[in-house]
Amino acid sequence: MLKSPRFDELVAKFSSLPGIGRKTAQRLAWHLLSIPKEKALELSTAIQNAVQSYTTCSTCCMLTEVNPCTLCTSPERDDSQLCVVESHSDVFTLESMNEYRGRYYVLGHLLSPLDGYGPDALGIPGLLKRIEELQPEELILALKPSAEGEATIHYLTELLQDHELNITRLSVGLPFGGDLEYSGTLTLANAFKRRFPA
Amino acid sequence: MLKSPRFDELVAKFSSLPGIGRKTAQRLAWHLLSIPKEKALELSTAIQNAVQSYTTCSTCCMLTEVNPCTLCTSPERDDSQLCVVESHSDVFTLESMNEYRGRYYVLGHLLSPLDGYGPDALGIPGLLKRIEELQPEELILALKPSAEGEATIHYLTELLQDHELNITRLSVGLPFGGDLEYSGTLTLANAFKRRFPA
Repeated sequence: MLKSPRFDELVAKFSSLPGIGRKTAQRLAWHLLSIPKEKALELSTAIQNAVQSYTTCSTCCMLTEVNPCTLCTSPERDDSQLCVVESHSDVFTLESMNEYRGRYYVLGHLLSPLDGYGPDALGIPGLLKRIEELQPEELILALKPSAEGEATIHYLTELLQDHELNITRLSVGLPFGGDLEYSGTLTLANAFKRRFPA
Repeated sequence: MLKSPRFDELVAKFSSLPGIGRKTAQRLAWHLLSIPKEKALELSTAIQNAVQSYTTCSTCCMLTEVNPCTLCTSPERDDSQLCVVESHSDVFTLESMNEYRGRYYVLGHLLSPLDGYGPDALGIPGLLKRIEELQPEELILALKPSAEGEATIHYLTELLQDHELNITRLSVGLPFGGDLEYSGTLTLANAFKRRFPA
């Protein structure tokens, strides 16, 4: 009677976002319907504009508005270091540290066979191609120290053992199971500095 | 370099929602850019569809897809009870209790002079008109027991003292300062049953 398919649809879409539960989704939906229409539609437009203009970099798999992305094409970045991360937001987080000047590669997923993410889900061909092109001295596996992260680090280290590469990983000063995104800048910078051979 | 005005705009719009901080807004933005475009655009479309189709009921000020709303036009609702609430979501919450069968009136705001919400912000003319039309026996002030709620209850009780009305308020079994929306169904039903003269 009060709710409509459109309202339910909006709640469902909000609920599908990470960290948004059903009650929060309902609150957000009521909020959007309570404020002036043009204000509410600004969010819709912002989503469209951002989603339509972003694509995946063909070189490093980072989200970007230009392809290849500015991190890949910048002459100021150091080719001798290649940093492998799980997700787009990890690049963002590491960049906000303002310390690393090398290149990146976004895996997209960690190894998690139980969830259906085997080696094929990891963008390995792109990583091998990137290593081939850059011939970096160091490969930094900036993956989170969880079961999936450890498995991925182990897998990549085995896979690349015949390459002339100094493979390192971040210091496990990070809390186990925690996401890069939510750690403080100092903790992250510290972990980055103390990376050790994998 | 990594962020763009479009990304910042999306984060800003998410941050403007209630309960969404800057870190969460960034996480939501990254999430939307990481999933398939058509999935991300579904949220944008859901917002548009809901926002475009909802309007404010000219009788009770509730959000509705038809005007007047089905709560006002339903012959099954009891005209002898009129329930006054602060916001649209409060109607939704009270309805989910599945106990009250009377009519509603949405004030839109509580009295809060320091925040710029004086008696003029409260939709009083619409409430007086609704009382005139329905001639209810009981006026239930289902407002939250906070400083603003108490002030509004006091104001309305004074204003309506010459009307032939049994003015009641919800039991203060609700935690002081809490929102209707986040209380358990039993607590709410209990508070509704034990309403007492204001």
